[in-house]
Amino acid sequence: MSYLTEDTSAEVVNGRIGAQTDPRLREVMSSLVSHLHAFIKEVELTEAEWDYAIEFLTRTGQMCDDTRQEFILLSDVLGVSMLVDAVNHRLPEGATQSTVFGPFHVKGAPERPMGATISLDGKGELCLFEGRVLDVDGTPIENALVDVWSDNEDGFYDVQQPDIQPPFNNRGVFRTGPDGRYAFRGIKPVSYPIPDDGPVGQMLAALGRHPWRPAHMHFMISAPEHARLITHLFVAGDDYLASDAVFGVKPDLIVGLEPVAEGDAMPPAEQGEAAPVKWRAQYDFRLKKQG
Amino acid sequence: MSYLTEDTSAEVVNGRIGAQTDPRLREVMSSLVSHLHAFIKEVELTEAEWDYAIEFLTRTGQMCDDTRQEFILLSDVLGVSMLVDAVNHRLPEGATQSTVFGPFHVKGAPERPMGATISLDGKGELCLFEGRVLDVDGTPIENALVDVWSDNEDGFYDVQQPDIQPPFNNRGVFRTGPDGRYAFRGIKPVSYPIPDDGPVGQMLAALGRHPWRPAHMHFMISAPEHARLITHLFVAGDDYLASDAVFGVKPDLIVGLEPVAEGDAMPPAEQGEAAPVKWRAQYDFRLKKQG
Repeated sequence: MSYLTEDTSAEVVNGRIGAQTDPRLREVMSSLVSHLHAFIKEVELTEAEWDYAIEFLTRTGQMCDDTRQEFILLSDVLGVSMLVDAVNHRLPEGATQSTVFGPFHVKGAPERPMGATISLDGKGELCLFEGRVLDVDGTPIENALVDVWSDNEDGFYDVQQPDIQPPFNNRGVFRTGPDGRYAFRGIKPVSYPIPDDGPVGQMLAALGRHPWRPAHMHFMISAPEHARLITHLFVAGDDYLASDAVFGVKPDLIVGLEPVAEGDAMPPAEQGEAAPVKWRAQYDFRLKKQG
Repeated sequence: MSYLTEDTSAEVVNGRIGAQTDPRLREVMSSLVSHLHAFIKEVELTEAEWDYAIEFLTRTGQMCDDTRQEFILLSDVLGVSMLVDAVNHRLPEGATQSTVFGPFHVKGAPERPMGATISLDGKGELCLFEGRVLDVDGTPIENALVDVWSDNEDGFYDVQQPDIQPPFNNRGVFRTGPDGRYAFRGIKPVSYPIPDDGPVGQMLAALGRHPWRPAHMHFMISAPEHARLITHLFVAGDDYLASDAVFGVKPDLIVGLEPVAEGDAMPPAEQGEAAPVKWRAQYDFRLKKQG
């Protein structure tokens, strides 16, 4: 018989795992229990702090609904989401870095003709995003699907404002040709705060941290025989690049937006395109081979 | 500027904590982040496992209401509650050991005359609990309040069955005299499963663990100038002593119940006491001095 003591606590708990337990579940839970117990011993967690932790976790769970996931926010602001991304996407030299997926992707965004505008609400300064989808050795990839999304000029994604923004505002999917080129008109994205009116916002405030994310355009790029790439392009010069609330920034993903002069050559837009493009962002993505 | 990488993740997250942050909050959160990140790296947590963890924590929070606290159950079955108890109650040689408080204590149970019966529903075999409340040097403590509670013969606390059990069934408070003695008639407690119809029950099943707690009587003993003692007495011979779902058992808290023969001397009971006592448990509690 082994009873739990301060010295043996994790061993005793892990010793209870049944013989028939899935080996991976055993590995994950044993490691979790060991680290959780080590944390409690290291800080000598008080009973009042434990009470607070129980109450905090309960409120975090109860804040979640169909459009709000407070535990993902918690994971994000503690750097857990980016760390999970890092351990699952160790990329070869030359491949474009990944970053957090975020909660605002929507499946089924329309495939649009190359060069088209994804900003449907007419807000914000138009920015041409263009470049190529390449293999790590520089070979253009045909038939890559470039799924892009961003906030609007007010800092909100369409799904956060279903009554105000048109469906699929600032969203679109583009398919590369044999030259691997993509081009679309989005807006120059703006920085925005993650939702901070819940337990996670209170935690950030107590830690002296702000809830802002630097401006970015999301990309999810899928191509035959290549690993899917989920990443952002960040706007150089943003105030929050060095303090992204969710730690998503990587230096290689920061892009300088060049101002567009009147009369500069532009790829063709959709029929009826009117508003002038103010900015231009150039970036080549390099995808790792599958497997 | 420091961006998050697999190698520096915890340092980068902890480096964001503001200069004005409460030092204890900084200590606790820095340790938590370091251990959480070490866990993720150690097991190389997959994205599917992270998804599952987010969903599990969300369901756990959403299972909580006024009468169900699933995060406390989670803490209990992972040995966290007992470990927090251990680090907060390092007791001197000779002092009675503490164990988990549990979620079923009720404030305001009636103070009853010494020897009285706390079992009001007439179910179960009566057991006389008797002994002394002492200082660690063996001096009897006067005016100690002995607050006791247990399940009923069906394995439920009164608050779990408010429509079936009378209020304060199997609960009472007793005050010691100059000899430090306490005595009351409870039932021989029975083993019972913790609520296992939620996420925690699913986790126990996946780990090949049962949800049972060995039979026990709860004690919370408060006395002037002494540290409050929260503990159980466990019934020797119980099937679950070596596998308490919440790791509450300590060898010194296991008590052999002696059968009572007809005509054995008994302390006086309340007026009208009728049912015969079948068992007798003898235990002296030794309280640590305050501070």
